[in-house]
Amino acid sequence: MSTTHQAPSERTQVKRISENARYDQDSLYAIVDAAYVCHVAFHDQYGSHCIPTACWREGDFLYIHGANASRLCKVLREGVPACVAILHLDGLVLARAAFNHSMNYRSAMIYGSFVVIPEEEKAASMAAFMEKIAPGRQAQVRPGNRAELAGTTLLKISLQEAVCKTRQGGPNDDEDDLALPVWAGVLP
Amino acid sequence: MSTTHQAPSERTQVKRISENARYDQDSLYAIVDAAYVCHVAFHDQYGSHCIPTACWREGDFLYIHGANASRLCKVLREGVPACVAILHLDGLVLARAAFNHSMNYRSAMIYGSFVVIPEEEKAASMAAFMEKIAPGRQAQVRPGNRAELAGTTLLKISLQEAVCKTRQGGPNDDEDDLALPVWAGVLP
Repeated sequence: MSTTHQAPSERTQVKRISENARYDQDSLYAIVDAAYVCHVAFHDQYGSHCIPTACWREGDFLYIHGANASRLCKVLREGVPACVAILHLDGLVLARAAFNHSMNYRSAMIYGSFVVIPEEEKAASMAAFMEKIAPGRQAQVRPGNRAELAGTTLLKISLQEAVCKTRQGGPNDDEDDLALPVWAGVLP
Repeated sequence: MSTTHQAPSERTQVKRISENARYDQDSLYAIVDAAYVCHVAFHDQYGSHCIPTACWREGDFLYIHGANASRLCKVLREGVPACVAILHLDGLVLARAAFNHSMNYRSAMIYGSFVVIPEEEKAASMAAFMEKIAPGRQAQVRPGNRAELAGTTLLKISLQEAVCKTRQGGPNDDEDDLALPVWAGVLP
């Protein structure tokens, strides 16, 4: 992801309500680090798929994992084009006009292809995942044994081609609607 | 979605931990109705996309909406293959072995193609959406005017080809790990 606050590619250029777009690394890392799960989109001979899965970040990469035999891992390990979405829904924005209702959210989209993590790096990456879920816990539990790690595929995708979009704050009512006798605000 | 509790198609057949799959309508409707947002996957000349968007259900269809000029609406209105995912993350399952950690969740995946809602049905469907977000509110706010509705595309996808997968309950530890001196349970 560029730190110049410009879209890193044509497909990450936000066009709708573009003032809500963020292209900086800090915004991206904050949204990724706050997420336990992401949704991964990819396409194969059965059509498009949208699969929720756990995720964590190491450096400038987002990591996922799955059973070797899962469709997710079998297809993504081939390096097909993928798109990862992360969404934190923060509130329902109730406006005075139906059309101006909205939602507050923090979202990120990441484009690219996944690459497979080599066998010798798996244990360290799974430990990083545990550290995210429950800091300090890795030292207490039984770590993955060779068979468990061998049955698990780890994949990472670069965070270079990414974009964030967020909405915060109250409703944006039309001036003509401000006098309407209806409560407006944000439901968390 | 079949009420026979069998997968309605090959691509909705759950293979991993298949005892967590649900193919009945009640499970599907409950998961869809509890969701404010879904993720929609589709593929175009720029690759695969995964776009979060608001959703609601009317009968046996899931509805979404967007600006006419958005990529989401421009591509989906062509009837391309799509996949919709809904996820409710309910808890982090901490087990005694790293490998047995999991998450509790309720999820649904819907396959198919979207169709465009005709102009004359838009107002009623947007009212149904409002009724979901804030029951009774549609009677209080200024309804969408002709220009607002004309700029909005509404799309629906059949819930016939769908599958749910859920996990509930505590950790499934290996018998050999049960004596390990580490707390195990579910973090909400």
